[in-house]
This record gives sequence, structure tokens and C-alpha cells, in this order.
Amino acid sequence: MSSSSGVTIAIDAMGGDHGPSVVLPGAAISLERRPGIRFAIFGEEQAVLPVLDGLPKLKAASVFHHCDVSIRMDERPSQALRQGRYRSSMWRAVEAVKTGEAHVAVSAGNTGALMAMAKFCLRTMAKVERPAIAAIWPTLRGESIVLDVGATIGADAQQLVDFSLMGAAMARALFGAEQPTVGLLNVGVEEVKGQEEVREAARFLKETAISGLSYKGFVEGDDLGKGTVDVVVTEGFTGNVALKTAEGTAKQIAGYLRAAMSQTWMARLGYILAKSAFDRLRDKMDPRKVNGGVFLGLNGVVIKSHGGTDAEGLAAAIDLACAMAENGLLGKVEEALRLFHERLTAETVVEVAPETI
Amino acid sequence: MSSSSGVTIAIDAMGGDHGPSVVLPGAAISLERRPGIRFAIFGEEQAVLPVLDGLPKLKAASVFHHCDVSIRMDERPSQALRQGRYRSSMWRAVEAVKTGEAHVAVSAGNTGALMAMAKFCLRTMAKVERPAIAAIWPTLRGESIVLDVGATIGADAQQLVDFSLMGAAMARALFGAEQPTVGLLNVGVEEVKGQEEVREAARFLKETAISGLSYKGFVEGDDLGKGTVDVVVTEGFTGNVALKTAEGTAKQIAGYLRAAMSQTWMARLGYILAKSAFDRLRDKMDPRKVNGGVFLGLNGVVIKSHGGTDAEGLAAAIDLACAMAENGLLGKVEEALRLFHERLTAETVVEVAPETI
Repeated sequence: MSSSSGVTIAIDAMGGDHGPSVVLPGAAISLERRPGIRFAIFGEEQAVLPVLDGLPKLKAASVFHHCDVSIRMDERPSQALRQGRYRSSMWRAVEAVKTGEAHVAVSAGNTGALMAMAKFCLRTMAKVERPAIAAIWPTLRGESIVLDVGATIGADAQQLVDFSLMGAAMARALFGAEQPTVGLLNVGVEEVKGQEEVREAARFLKETAISGLSYKGFVEGDDLGKGTVDVVVTEGFTGNVALKTAEGTAKQIAGYLRAAMSQTWMARLGYILAKSAFDRLRDKMDPRKVNGGVFLGLNGVVIKSHGGTDAEGLAAAIDLACAMAENGLLGKVEEALRLFHERLTAETVVEVAPETI
Repeated sequence: MSSSSGVTIAIDAMGGDHGPSVVLPGAAISLERRPGIRFAIFGEEQAVLPVLDGLPKLKAASVFHHCDVSIRMDERPSQALRQGRYRSSMWRAVEAVKTGEAHVAVSAGNTGALMAMAKFCLRTMAKVERPAIAAIWPTLRGESIVLDVGATIGADAQQLVDFSLMGAAMARALFGAEQPTVGLLNVGVEEVKGQEEVREAARFLKETAISGLSYKGFVEGDDLGKGTVDVVVTEGFTGNVALKTAEGTAKQIAGYLRAAMSQTWMARLGYILAKSAFDRLRDKMDPRKVNGGVFLGLNGVVIKSHGGTDAEGLAAAIDLACAMAENGLLGKVEEALRLFHERLTAETVVEVAPETI
């Protein structure tokens, strides 16, 4: 339990498959765990107020703002931006981060629309070309950060280096590591040895000592679950496929396990005896516990919750938002980028000097 | 059990982390299951003959060819090709397919070197620009085929269409389906909607009725484990990452399960009672059972076994080789490509005709 005093989270109450009926109970769970947090809640009053009235503690900790427009889960980002800019619950939640009313915004809505609005409203940080979405990945060692899991497709070498810096800053904020380890996702097949941009980023990270991260080289798909490094960097297409493949494999094995444990009476009896062990396993594999994709590289922190999650999952995304606000994620990312580019400029000057004399 | 009479498998006895001590016992296991098969075994006689002498049934079913050179697991493909061409056990196994001495070649050696030699020796089929490696993926519905898992990086639309045709031909050979379902791997994030080449391949597959496959649209990472389609098509970088991510996730969960089941005496007792259920689960999750990446698009079938597998895994790769030979994989792929390109040419002529009149 943490007090999180002074942290305000902006909530898009209309986001996700179930809207306020899941989002608000999720916020209430998070408030139980962190009694000091405050909320700025955005949504349609006919949908939000009946639910909020049933959650008096949450109501007392919140400021509610009515919004006429809600973004649908299947809306195209361009259309959502056109129709929902300035007035939708999603936009207003993001805008609250810009105006300083809230520290972090959380939405379970349409990822594409949320990214489009966040980019339009908050803008990318100076020197960052493209934002990334970072996921928290459960591993045998604990947790790692994987980015990008879907914001961009086909990042170039410079963007992969940016992702490395931003991911390491997030690892410092989240895990408290001074020098988080970073790896670039690649394939092990000798002949192909990865895309040119991945190799170029690797050369740069190897040759440039960057304060605040320790570059460990290439990692492969099976290193994700092992937790070989704190931060795994890749472009959004591969990252998104990897994330969903891991989620799908976990569900598949859970399905096998359920089937196996109900097949004979001996197995069923064994299951009953080992129930607390199975509960711990389910807990470990629970995707709700690591719910929340963090948008990095914007002038403000926005967190995307899974659209289909329940109140527990939503609460995990809000917990993550609080942790990011308390640990100063935004400042850490800004500082890492500033230091990096200052040093890079200084070194370039030194390198160029002999020739200009 | 199958007789597999008349099928000869060429074996690179020196491949893999353990060489003949694993490869030959693997072949012996496969021979027990399919007493009709014959082997052409390639390797260094000092390493191979002592093991082969201990496996008299295998020896009786084999022709042994001494080769001076063995390809190391860490050798660069270009170097392997330079030093091992015409005389290494890997080359000679592949060459046996070209000369007709064997129907399929199996090696647990270096993937890059094997692909380089297979391309050089067998050549790609007419109209196929690049070969692919197809993996068999265990799913909740049974098995699917996923390609490419590492032969090429960054396939264009035409190559993705080729992979679809070849993957469907393999599904017909392996699963006996008349019209296997095919999906293109993509990301679900609305804003990005996938790479241009993936979208272009999708447009083509949607608009062109291709005999012998039923195109089902885009699939995502979590569809792999569900078995949503018979054949999942992607380029090699993403496919390789997805394959290794799934393997890593399965290992990670097995680790969690072991830890949970040994934590309390109740859990241990439950484990003992449910042991047969756990054994079935382990069997389902056993990566050795689906060992074997099939090289598609070459004028001959080559199968790559995991380098680190044991004799059981090697036997699974040989079983797959036998199945591919018996079911005429090569002919099915050739026919699918021929029919497709004939139709395409015919249609182009019809389309062009009015303008040329």
C-alpha cells in the first residue's frame, strides 16, 4: 500500500468494452490500495453518474467532467480525431495531463485513437521522432519492459536507440535499477542476422557508452520469458506479434492444464489437494496483473489498458499510472534524452575539430 | 505405424550439438516406427561407425558415406559453403536429394549453413524468389503450419503470396485438408494496420480465387495458439521471433508449474495423484514432438531439426521427413505454383487483350 498523496489520474470512463461499469469499479479498487490518489473522471453523465453514485469513496476522491462524445472501440483513428478532438472523454482525459490537472491519463479505449489523440494533444518530445508503447512482461526473473508493442511499424536505427533510452528510463522509474540492461530483439539464424536497422542500432549502442543503461547485445524471442535483460527493444510490428503470441501461448497451456486436470478422478483429487499451488500459478499467469501499455516519448504520460479487461485489470493499469507519476517517469525520460543528445553533440564537435583546424 | 516402404532419408550424422550420438539413435527410433525406411548416412567414419555398430538394425537399413568435413554449429554460412561444398556431410546429405538417392534430407546442423547449401545445391523452384522455413505449430485445435520462421527477412507481397501457396500445399500433404485455411499475420492496432507488403498480399489473396487454399484474412499473434487457420504466413523475422517467444513462454510456465507443485506437501501429494494428467500435459507441451523446420520452395525437401534436441526430437524430424516424402510434398508445391502461375498468365492475357486489339 502506498499513499500516493498528491497524484491525480485522469480517467476516460467511456473506454473499453464495458465502459463505466468496469472502469469506475477499477478506479475504486485502486483507490482502496492508494487512499491518497485523486481522479479526474471524463464521460457521459447518464452513463457515469449512476455508477459513480454507487461508489461513494471514489466519488469523494474525484472531479467529474461531462463529455458529449465517446470514442467507439472500432472507430478509425483519423475519424476519432476528427469527431472526438476537444470534446470526447478520451481527448479530455489526455488534455488533463497537458493542462496539469492530472499527472497521468488512463484509457481502456481504442489504441489507435488514443495514440492519435495523445500525439496531437501532447506532441512528441524534442528529438523524439515517434512514440512507443511499452509493455510490462512477466519473466522468470521478475518483470521486464518490452517496447515498442504497437505504436510504430518499421523503426529505423535512431528510433530503436530512442526506444532504448526511453525504455531504460522507464526501468529506472519502475524497478529502481541504476543501470538497467537493454537488449535488441533479433533472430538467431546465422545467415540472416537481422534487419539492417537493428544491426546499425546495435553498433551504435555498443560503441556509445550511454549513462543510465547497460547494453547487452541481441536477444531472441525466448529471452523474453527468461528475463535475460530489463528492457527489450524492437519495432512495433514484431513487438505486437510477440506480445500477443505470448498471451496466446499462456492461454493455450492453461486450456491444456484444465483439460488434463478434469480427465480422471485421481487428477481431480490431485487438483483439489494442490489447489493453493494452482491458485499461485494462476496468479503468476494472470494477464490482468501486468495490464497497461505506457506511451513513451510524448510530453505527458498516457496509459492504455486492455479494452476487454475487468475491474481488477483496470486497477492494475491505474496502479501503474500512480507508480509512473510517483517515480517521475516523464522527468526521467526527458533527462535521459537531454543528456544523450548533449553528449552526442559535444562528441561530434570533438570529432569534427581536427579536420576543421 | 507406417511402412514407408521405398522411402530413403539422407541424414547429416554430424549435425546438431551432439552429432552422431544423438542423430543415429534418433534415426533408430524412427526406423522402429517405420520399418520400411532406408537411410543414406553421411559423416566422419571415426565418429559415425562406433555408434552405428551399436545399432545393428539401423546399420542394416543404411548406406554409409564417409565425409572428411563437418560444418560447425557456429560457422558462418558463407564460410561453411566455401569449405564444405561438395564434401561436407551436410552438403552430401542435401546432394543425395538432388541426385535422387534420397527423398528428403534431415540435418540438425547450423540453419544458415544448411539453407545456404540447400539453395546452392537444389536451387529455388521456377517462379519462387526465396525459400521459406515452415514450422509445425501445436494449437488448441491440433496443428498449424507457420512460415517463414527464419529463412528470409522482410518478404514482399509476392513472396508472401508464394509462402501462402507453399504453406497450403504442405497443409494438404500433412493434414490431408483439401482447402486449407490461410491467414496473414498482422497487428490489430487500428492506426498502423500492418506493413504495406502485408496489406498488398492481403488484397491479392482476397481478390484472387486460388485453388487449394481458402484465404481467411488477417490473424494476430494470439491466433497462433488458437489454431484459427491451418497456415499462418509472415516474413522470417517476425515468424522467428513468434516461434521463439511461444517456446520461451511454454518453458516459463512449465517453470512456474514445477515451482508451485513442489512448494507444500499438499501440492506435492496432489502432484503425485495427478501425475498421469501432468504427464499428458508435458506430452502436449513437448517441443520435441513438433521438431522439424521444412525448407519450402527448393527443388527438393530438406528438414532442419533443432540443434539441441535429443534422439526423440530427431526421430520426430525424421518422421516428418517420411510423411513429407510419402505424401508427395514436393509435387504438391510444384503443382500449386504451376497452376497458380498458369492461371495468372491466362488472366493477364484476357485482361490485356481488349487494349491490344
